[in-house]
Amino acid sequence: MIPAWKNTPSGKLRAKGLGLRFEGASGPFNAITDVAGVSVGYSTIITGEGPLVTGKGPVRTGVTAIVPRPFGQIEQPLFAGFFSLNGNGELSGSHYIEETGKMALPVTITNTHSCGIARDATIRWAVEYLAERYHDDFALPVAAETYDGFLNDINGFHVEARHVIEAIEAARGGAIEEGSVGGGTGMKCFGFKAGSGTSSRRLDYDGEAFTIGVFVQANFGTRRHLTVLGRTIGADPELPAMVTKTGDTDLSSIIVVIATDAPFLPHQLKRLARRASFGIGRTGGMATHGSGDLFLAFSTAASDLGGGAMRTVRFVPDEDIDGFFEAVVQATEEAILNAMIANEAMTGRDGNFVPALPHEAVKAALGLRD
Amino acid sequence: MIPAWKNTPSGKLRAKGLGLRFEGASGPFNAITDVAGVSVGYSTIITGEGPLVTGKGPVRTGVTAIVPRPFGQIEQPLFAGFFSLNGNGELSGSHYIEETGKMALPVTITNTHSCGIARDATIRWAVEYLAERYHDDFALPVAAETYDGFLNDINGFHVEARHVIEAIEAARGGAIEEGSVGGGTGMKCFGFKAGSGTSSRRLDYDGEAFTIGVFVQANFGTRRHLTVLGRTIGADPELPAMVTKTGDTDLSSIIVVIATDAPFLPHQLKRLARRASFGIGRTGGMATHGSGDLFLAFSTAASDLGGGAMRTVRFVPDEDIDGFFEAVVQATEEAILNAMIANEAMTGRDGNFVPALPHEAVKAALGLRD
Amino acid sequence: MIPAWKNTPSGKLRAKGLGLRFEGASGPFNAITDVAGVSVGYSTIITGEGPLVTGKGPVRTGVTAIVPRPFGQIEQPLFAGFFSLNGNGELSGSHYIEETGKMALPVTITNTHSCGIARDATIRWAVEYLAERYHDDFALPVAAETYDGFLNDINGFHVEARHVIEAIEAARGGAIEEGSVGGGTGMKCFGFKAGSGTSSRRLDYDGEAFTIGVFVQANFGTRRHLTVLGRTIGADPELPAMVTKTGDTDLSSIIVVIATDAPFLPHQLKRLARRASFGIGRTGGMATHGSGDLFLAFSTAASDLGGGAMRTVRFVPDEDIDGFFEAVVQATEEAILNAMIANEAMTGRDGNFVPALPHEAVKAALGLRD
Amino acid sequence: MIPAWKNTPSGKLRAKGLGLRFEGASGPFNAITDVAGVSVGYSTIITGEGPLVTGKGPVRTGVTAIVPRPFGQIEQPLFAGFFSLNGNGELSGSHYIEETGKMALPVTITNTHSCGIARDATIRWAVEYLAERYHDDFALPVAAETYDGFLNDINGFHVEARHVIEAIEAARGGAIEEGSVGGGTGMKCFGFKAGSGTSSRRLDYDGEAFTIGVFVQANFGTRRHLTVLGRTIGADPELPAMVTKTGDTDLSSIIVVIATDAPFLPHQLKRLARRASFGIGRTGGMATHGSGDLFLAFSTAASDLGGGAMRTVRFVPDEDIDGFFEAVVQATEEAILNAMIANEAMTGRDGNFVPALPHEAVKAALGLRD
Repeated sequence: MIPAWKNTPSGKLRAKGLGLRFEGASGPFNAITDVAGVSVGYSTIITGEGPLVTGKGPVRTGVTAIVPRPFGQIEQPLFAGFFSLNGNGELSGSHYIEETGKMALPVTITNTHSCGIARDATIRWAVEYLAERYHDDFALPVAAETYDGFLNDINGFHVEARHVIEAIEAARGGAIEEGSVGGGTGMKCFGFKAGSGTSSRRLDYDGEAFTIGVFVQANFGTRRHLTVLGRTIGADPELPAMVTKTGDTDLSSIIVVIATDAPFLPHQLKRLARRASFGIGRTGGMATHGSGDLFLAFSTAASDLGGGAMRTVRFVPDEDIDGFFEAVVQATEEAILNAMIANEAMTGRDGNFVPALPHEAVKAALGLRD
Repeated sequence: MIPAWKNTPSGKLRAKGLGLRFEGASGPFNAITDVAGVSVGYSTIITGEGPLVTGKGPVRTGVTAIVPRPFGQIEQPLFAGFFSLNGNGELSGSHYIEETGKMALPVTITNTHSCGIARDATIRWAVEYLAERYHDDFALPVAAETYDGFLNDINGFHVEARHVIEAIEAARGGAIEEGSVGGGTGMKCFGFKAGSGTSSRRLDYDGEAFTIGVFVQANFGTRRHLTVLGRTIGADPELPAMVTKTGDTDLSSIIVVIATDAPFLPHQLKRLARRASFGIGRTGGMATHGSGDLFLAFSTAASDLGGGAMRTVRFVPDEDIDGFFEAVVQATEEAILNAMIANEAMTGRDGNFVPALPHEAVKAALGLRD
Repeated sequence: MIPAWKNTPSGKLRAKGLGLRFEGASGPFNAITDVAGVSVGYSTIITGEGPLVTGKGPVRTGVTAIVPRPFGQIEQPLFAGFFSLNGNGELSGSHYIEETGKMALPVTITNTHSCGIARDATIRWAVEYLAERYHDDFALPVAAETYDGFLNDINGFHVEARHVIEAIEAARGGAIEEGSVGGGTGMKCFGFKAGSGTSSRRLDYDGEAFTIGVFVQANFGTRRHLTVLGRTIGADPELPAMVTKTGDTDLSSIIVVIATDAPFLPHQLKRLARRASFGIGRTGGMATHGSGDLFLAFSTAASDLGGGAMRTVRFVPDEDIDGFFEAVVQATEEAILNAMIANEAMTGRDGNFVPALPHEAVKAALGLRD
Repeated sequence: MIPAWKNTPSGKLRAKGLGLRFEGASGPFNAITDVAGVSVGYSTIITGEGPLVTGKGPVRTGVTAIVPRPFGQIEQPLFAGFFSLNGNGELSGSHYIEETGKMALPVTITNTHSCGIARDATIRWAVEYLAERYHDDFALPVAAETYDGFLNDINGFHVEARHVIEAIEAARGGAIEEGSVGGGTGMKCFGFKAGSGTSSRRLDYDGEAFTIGVFVQANFGTRRHLTVLGRTIGADPELPAMVTKTGDTDLSSIIVVIATDAPFLPHQLKRLARRASFGIGRTGGMATHGSGDLFLAFSTAASDLGGGAMRTVRFVPDEDIDGFFEAVVQATEEAILNAMIANEAMTGRDGNFVPALPHEAVKAALGLRD
C-alpha cells in the first residue's frame, strides 16, 4: 500500500513524496482528516473544451465540503475563529463566528460566483438530513470561494445545489485527494496548476496528543515570488509558462481551513487562523490586492455549547499556544505545496493553459536526489 | 395627490402621516430614493395558507433590491462602510468592503435561507445586463437577510434567481412602498408586523445640500421594549398579541442600508453605519443575541475609483460629520417606525399571526389628536 | 443610616433618590462594587481659581482606580472584552485584551493628557506591591481618559504618579462616591456637571445569582439631546447655561467599565461592552466625532487562566445572554444619570462654569412629586 | 564618505554593507528618512553594570522619536492606519487612528513600562513647542514599546519626560543610526542583539516617484527560526549563545512604522501596515504569544485634513497598490536585518548577555565572499 504521506489516493506524488522535508510531525494521513471526526468530500465538474460559451462551458470547477463533525453530530456547534488577511473574497457565516465564536454544519468551498448557492444548498441539505432535529431553526453556514474564471466558464453558474449536496455526502475521513479536485478544480498558484491541498501536525500538550489539520484551496501568487523551502525558484526562465488565450484577471486568493481537536476558545481560534499568513508568506505569497485570503479555524473539542444551562469548557492557555501556532504555519506551507505538487497541467476555456509545477525543477533547485 | 411623506404609494399611512413628529428635514419622498440615483425594487412572494408543508408553503417572503447607481453606471464602484452591531446574520460582500472601502452592483435583502441565491443571482443579472462591459471580471455583491420563518416556509427555498432579478429590474426612484413587501414581507418587530421601511434627511454643508437616505428591513425587538418617540408603549396589555401556533424562535434582526450623496471616505462611511445603533435603540431595540444587526453605508459622490491612474476625491472632514451622524440616527428611527406603521396584520404558516401596530394606540400613548 | 441607593456616602442625592424609577433590580450599593471583590478608589485634585496659568492651575482633575480583584489576588488575570463606539480617546491595554481576552491589575481613569502616567504608575505600584510575586514579568494595564480642559489646567500635567497610587490604595468596596470626584472631577455632560457615576443590576441564571456593575466617567453630550427616562428635556430654555469664558472644544467622551461575577468568555465580554452604547443612547448621546466612547467589560468569575496546564472555565452560553445585555443597558443609563444628579456646579479655569443639573427641573419634566 | 546604504553614521556595517542582496531599489539613505519631511531622533540611556537593583540599574534603554512632518507643520494631521498582528504590546493612539484615519505629532517608541510617559511627554512637548498654535486642543499621540527587561532595569522607570523630549528634539533627516540606540537599546531578536533598524524602497506610479520608508524596533524571534534571505541559519550550534543569569521571559515584540509620501487613504494605510507581517515572516518570526507586533503606516501626502470646509485628496487606487505592498515587505525584512547586523553584543543587568549576530556566520551561510 502506498503511504498516505507520499501519494494521494489516486497516486499523485505529494510534497514529501517528492522528497521535500518539513519540520514537525504529521498525522497518519498528513491531512485535515487526521483530526478525528473531520471528513472531506468533493464534487468535481469538468466538461467540454474549446472556446468559451457562457452557460455551456468549458467547465472546470467543483465544490469541496469540509465536514467538521461526524454526521450524527453535525448540528452541534463548534468554537471557531476567522481572520481576513486580505478581504477580496467571500466567506459567509463570518459575522456569526465573530459575534458568537461558533459555527455549525459543513464548510463548503467553490468558485467565486457559486458561493451563494453553496451556502444555501448546505442549509437545504441540513433541513433534509436533520429533519426533526432541525425544527424552526436557522443556519448561517460557512461557504467560501476562490476565482477559477481563467479556466472555467465561471459566469455559466454550473454549480448546482446537487453538486453541493454531493460533495457533502461524499465526505470521508482518511487519505484525501489533492490537486484539481472539488472546489480546487480550476485553480492556480504562481502560474502553476494548484487547487486543493492538505497537511497536518501532531503535538503534545499537558500529557495529551493533539492534531492541527489544514486544508487549503490555493489560487494565489505571482510566478517570480514562488518559494519552496526558502528557495525562490519562480524566476527561473526554464519553467513552463501559462498560455493565456484570453485575459487573465489574476484574481488570486486562498481559503485556509484549520481544524484541531485541541480545546481552544473562540479568541484563540482567531489567533490560530491569523498564523496561516506566515505559511502563505513562506511560499512567496504576499496577499496582493486581488486576493481573498480568508482563514477559518475550528476546534472539535468542545460540545454542548448551546443555551439552557451553564456550560464548562477546557482550553489550552494562551501562554502555551506557540507550538500550535508553529503547527499552523508548517501545515499551511505544506498544504499549499501539496496542492501544486500533487497536480497536473490543465487546459480550460478558450485554450487557456496552466502548466503543472515540474517536479524535476523543484528537486534540482533544492538539490534533492531521486 | 397624496404627499409621499404621509402615505406610501399604495396609500398606507406612514409615521408622519399618523401625526408623529420627528426632528430634521426629510427629502421630498422621505425615502432612500431622495439620494439621487438610488432606486429600490421589490419582488414579493405570497402564496398559500394553512399548515406548513416544507417546499409547498405557505410562502410569505420576497426580495428587495437597492440599486445604488443609475443602471447605466451600475458597475462603477462606490465607497462603502460596514458595521456589525450583532453578527447573528449574514451580509455578503463585507470582507471586500472592509478591505477596499468599496462595493458595486445592487444590494439585495431577503430571508435568511435565500441570501446565497440573492448574491449569486445578482452576479447572474450583472453578467447578462453588463454583457461586454463585464468581461473576465468578478463580483462580490452585498446580499443580506433577516429571518421570516415564523410566517414563511423558509425551508422551502421559494426565492429563485428570477425573483432576485425581478426585484432588481423593478427598481425605481421616487416614492417607495413600505411594510410587508419585498424582503420585508414576512418580518415582525416587537411582536407587530414590520418589514421594509425608509426615511431621509436633508442637510447642508459648506454651501451644498446633501441627503442621507436610510432603508431598513426591520425584524427585531421584544414587545415590552417598544418605544415610540420616547414613550415605552410595549407593556400595554391592551395591545394585540401575536398568535403562535408553532414555536417562535424569536430570531430578530435588522438590516440598515444608508445612502448618501455627501462625499465620504470609507472609514467615515463605517462611522455613519455605526450610528444606526442609536436609531434602533430609540425604538427599544438592544441587539439581542439572536439578532443579525448589520449596517451598510455607501456614498454615491465619488466615481472613477478604479485602477490605472492617481485618483482624486472630495470628502466632508471628520470634524464636521456630526450633523450627518444625527441624520442617520433620526432617519433610522423613523424608517423602523414606518416599517411598522405602514403595515397590516398577516397570517402565515400554520396560522401563525402577527398583528399590525394599532395606530390608535400609538396616537393615544403620544397624546396625538386626529 | 442613609440607604446607598438613595444617597452617595457624602449625602448627595442619586437618581433613585430623586425619585427616578428604573427597570431591573440593583445590588445593595447600586454600584460596581456590588460585584464581589471589586473596589473603587479616588484621588481628587482641586486647587486654585481664576485665570489659567499653564502648570499652575486652576486644577480640577483626578484619578479613579477600579480594582477588579481583591488586592491579594491582584496579579491574577481576568477575562475581559473591549469595544470602541467612537475612538476619539485613549484606553491603553486594549490590544492585549483583544488578543488574549485577558487583563490584570487596577484600571485607572483620568484626564486625557495624564493617561500615560496613570498607566505607568499602575505598573510602578504593582512592582512595589507585588514585590517577589512580580518577578521579571511585564504589564499592559488599562488606563483611560476623558477631557477636562474646560475646567482644568489640563496642559499643566498635575496628575503625578503619587496620585495614581493614592487612588489605587484608596480603593474600597461598599458604597462609593459619585459626581466630581477622582478622574471625573472636571467632567460635564450635556452642558451640566458630570463625572463619576455607577449602578448595578442583579439577575439569576441557572439557579445562581449574578451581578452586573457599571462605572462611568461621563463627559459627553449636546445639551438639546439630554433625555431622562424617555423625556428629551435638554431644549428647555429655563435650564441654566454653561459660562464659557474661554473656548470650549466640546471634546465629549465616556469611559464605561462593566464588571460582573457571571462567568463569560472573552468574546462574550466584548458583546456586553458593546451594549453600553444603548445606555448612552437612552440619555441622548450619539457618539459625536469628538467623543472617546470606549467600553471595557471584565468577569471576576474565572481564575487560574495562565499557562502551564490545561484550564477549565464555566460560562453562560451566548443563547442565554440577553438578560445580561439588558442589565448593561439599564445600569449604564442609570450610572450616567447618577454622575449628573449626584453632583454640583463647578467653576474652573478662567471662570469657566458648569451648572449642576437642576433636580427640580428633572422632577417637573417627569411629573415626579416630592 | 561612507555610503549610507553600507554603513550607519557611526560606521557599523548594515545588511547591504555585509553583502546581502535585496530586491527593490532603496532611497539614498535606505532609511525611513528617505520620505521627505520624516526625521528620527534618539535618546539612549546606558548606565551601570552588575546585579539588578530596581531603581538604580543597570540601565539599557531609551526613546526613539519618529517625527512625521517638519517641525513647523507638526500639528498637521496625517492619514494613518494601524494593524495588530499580535496584541501583546502597547501602541497608544490607535483608537483614534482606527476611528478617524488620522494621527499627529511625533511617534515615540520606548520600553514596555515607559510607554505612558513617552505618550504624555509628547503632549507636554507639543504644548510647549506649539504654544499659541496649540490652544485648548487635545492630543492622542502614538507611543509604542517593546520589552527590554532582560538587559535593562525596566522596573526602575529610568525614562523621564526629558528623555522623550530629547529624542524628539534630536530628530534629524538623512542617514540614521541603527542597532542599540534609542528605544532599541536593550532589545534582541532570535537571541542576538537587535533594536532599531530601517530601510526604504523607491517606486514609481503614474509618472511620479514615491518612497516607502520602514523603521522597526525589533525584539522578537526564537533562535532556531532565524532566517536570512531564505536560509534558516538559527539552528547552527556554532552560533554564540545568550548568557542568562536571570530568567528570560522571552517577551518578544516588534513595532513597525511605515512612512510614505505616496497618497493613500486611511483604509489603504491599514492594508500597507498589515503587509509588515510578511517581512517579519521572512526573517523567521511567527508572532508568538508573548509578542506585541503592532504596525503603523502613515502618509505625508495629504494636508489640510481638518474641519471647516470640504476637503480634497489624491490617492493611489487600491487596484494599483501591489508594488507598495511589496516595498513594505522588502523594507521590513531589510530593516530587521539591519537592526541585527549593525549591532554589537551587550551585557546588561545581572550580567545577562546578548551576543551580536556574527557577520562571518551570515556570510558563510549565504556563500558571500569578502
